[in-house]
Amino acid sequence: MSKAPKANAIVGQSGGPTGVINSSLVGVIEEAAKYAEIEKLYGAVHAVAGMVKEDFVDLSSVSADVLEVVAGSPSSALGSSRDKPDEEYCSRILEVFKKRDIRYFFYIGGNDSANTAHIINEMAQKAGYDMRAFHVPKTVDNDLLVTDHCPGFGTAAKFVSCALMGDDLDNRALPGVKIDVIMGRHAGFLTAAAALGRQRGDDGPHLIYMPERGFSMDKFVGDIERVYKRLGRCVVAVSEGVCDVDGVTWAEKLAKEKEVDSHGNIQLSGTGALADFLAGEVKGNLSIKRVRADTFGYLQRSFAGLQSEVDTREARACGVEAVRLAMTNMSGSVAMRRTGEGSDYGVELFRTDLCNVAEKTKSMPDEFINADGNGVTEAFVNYAKPLTGGLPKTEFLGNYPKV
Amino acid sequence: MSKAPKANAIVGQSGGPTGVINSSLVGVIEEAAKYAEIEKLYGAVHAVAGMVKEDFVDLSSVSADVLEVVAGSPSSALGSSRDKPDEEYCSRILEVFKKRDIRYFFYIGGNDSANTAHIINEMAQKAGYDMRAFHVPKTVDNDLLVTDHCPGFGTAAKFVSCALMGDDLDNRALPGVKIDVIMGRHAGFLTAAAALGRQRGDDGPHLIYMPERGFSMDKFVGDIERVYKRLGRCVVAVSEGVCDVDGVTWAEKLAKEKEVDSHGNIQLSGTGALADFLAGEVKGNLSIKRVRADTFGYLQRSFAGLQSEVDTREARACGVEAVRLAMTNMSGSVAMRRTGEGSDYGVELFRTDLCNVAEKTKSMPDEFINADGNGVTEAFVNYAKPLTGGLPKTEFLGNYPKV
Repeated sequence: MSKAPKANAIVGQSGGPTGVINSSLVGVIEEAAKYAEIEKLYGAVHAVAGMVKEDFVDLSSVSADVLEVVAGSPSSALGSSRDKPDEEYCSRILEVFKKRDIRYFFYIGGNDSANTAHIINEMAQKAGYDMRAFHVPKTVDNDLLVTDHCPGFGTAAKFVSCALMGDDLDNRALPGVKIDVIMGRHAGFLTAAAALGRQRGDDGPHLIYMPERGFSMDKFVGDIERVYKRLGRCVVAVSEGVCDVDGVTWAEKLAKEKEVDSHGNIQLSGTGALADFLAGEVKGNLSIKRVRADTFGYLQRSFAGLQSEVDTREARACGVEAVRLAMTNMSGSVAMRRTGEGSDYGVELFRTDLCNVAEKTKSMPDEFINADGNGVTEAFVNYAKPLTGGLPKTEFLGNYPKV
Repeated sequence: MSKAPKANAIVGQSGGPTGVINSSLVGVIEEAAKYAEIEKLYGAVHAVAGMVKEDFVDLSSVSADVLEVVAGSPSSALGSSRDKPDEEYCSRILEVFKKRDIRYFFYIGGNDSANTAHIINEMAQKAGYDMRAFHVPKTVDNDLLVTDHCPGFGTAAKFVSCALMGDDLDNRALPGVKIDVIMGRHAGFLTAAAALGRQRGDDGPHLIYMPERGFSMDKFVGDIERVYKRLGRCVVAVSEGVCDVDGVTWAEKLAKEKEVDSHGNIQLSGTGALADFLAGEVKGNLSIKRVRADTFGYLQRSFAGLQSEVDTREARACGVEAVRLAMTNMSGSVAMRRTGEGSDYGVELFRTDLCNVAEKTKSMPDEFINADGNGVTEAFVNYAKPLTGGLPKTEFLGNYPKV
């Protein structure tokens, strides 16, 4: 194996922010500082957009104290971008890399970011430019291939479960139907996380709809009616990406003007339209007076002071591992393999090829979704609960023995 | 002063839940346990609705361990009610009190709850029934009279500030216009709390609209345009109760079917309509592509695991104080007086007459709102920041010196 070259490095953060994407960034920064081979560590401001115009900050000069604050801050401390670089865009990035003698490229993001790293890596190889590209996974959607789970998911799952724990108690206090619309695009993991805080047999969410199972409005309303008749209340978690039985998302059916980003993704977040529509359907079809709907929006991915400790630790370790692996002259993507369950929960990190993660996404496996397509299984709870780093206990007194 | 009678006591929780209304409940429970005069402590399930039908739990039997979990749980552990008891309803409650020999009545709630306690108290006096009624304040809206601030506000303010801290960093990562609609009905305190986490000169929210100042859509859009031109982004906090210049709330103008509760309050929460409308106005009038809107909804009043320590401590102390005062044969409402500012922050508790708190509400004082009516003053920050119990520090690296 050839020696890692003495050269500069760059790190960027792409796509939707998460609560721990900065922990991965700090992992990269602190590990890069250990190697004499890495001279300067550039931070690309606004990801690929910053790379083409050389909008760089010097990350070697940031103090350890500040880095700890960065690691604890939500969102992307270097800024992000939704640009989807084509071949021409990527070749301009490579030109900048050459000009600045950048031979270590760390890119923290989702499947689109893995693809960008992959394209630039291939391009460098073809051009005979000696460079290593490493993708560090992040996404609240938890939909990347190969890795057991994605940094960012655990913290978002903690937010969603704490929200639902509170919301279910709120709904016990003032009973009615409550619908919560949750992020995740076409993967149901984050919506499913609504179940993680349940402690009592009749705790909500009582119904969970994930994009992996289509549903008709009749089924949706019928399910709610059944729960409401039984409990006198009903809390429902709905993914922003839920589909009608014809496979078209309800959000798309609703959108007056479809807003599509450069990756072809329709805007699902940042609007309360789906939640209000679903509440309207329930109000219109059932004689229940109190029907409320909330859309969790950007709070679930960028909320200050609510990181999952497990997620933060893993995100940082993934950043560290990317640098370590790059120093052995490899390119690739960092992934996690689970080494134990329950109280033995743990992960080990490994490398996978960039092409294994690039562009593709995964959905909730069948064993995580109940037979009715309106809830999750114990297998999902066992899979996801450790990632939240632990959830608070709650108590409700209203169902104590009557006197 | 006559001796406090040996009799039973009752406690209830009314109105919208908060993050610390259970701390007040536990304060009542633990203090009541100290007095031989209080025989049984009934918990009224669903407030006045439980009182008329004698839906009671025995709170004397709840273990100390469970009580600590209750104190840390959001929402109302006894359940709540939106019923507004009239004279007949109140006289039925008094009958139950007589039947059960209840002579201590503790009611945790807002101004409507203070009024209920007031009516029943007057009724008991007229009937010559020896009884003490104490109101314990709670509301995320912070709009009760007499008291410096309300238990529940600090925790909701912490949620809102942590949300805005994250959201502003999210908006730095992916710039655009972001509108956040926040609770508070006709008082701007909770929306104003969006400012409490600001740390850098250009941190959002850049604009804050409170119900105390009407605004035209022209002003709203113009304000946003000005900020966007200067910073390339704009984060806006808007109260659910904001009004047009004619004094009518924008929410009311939007509502297709006005839903009104028994207190005559229009439904402002549990729908994303106002946020989506405002985003539409910005999109329609300015050529800004990325405009997003979130409605914080019930998350800001009932979220598990995010209490303000200061708020929790004060809420519990208010519950304790209500029992103490009742044991000296008084009725009334517990209020807080501030004894120091900044690092010397502290409060002392005192008693005020029920009629001073009943029914009325207060608005943000003028000195808390800026001259343009689109932001808060330093005086507000000094007033509200200690109530959050401290906020996390954050960092953004994208504006570090370029290399």
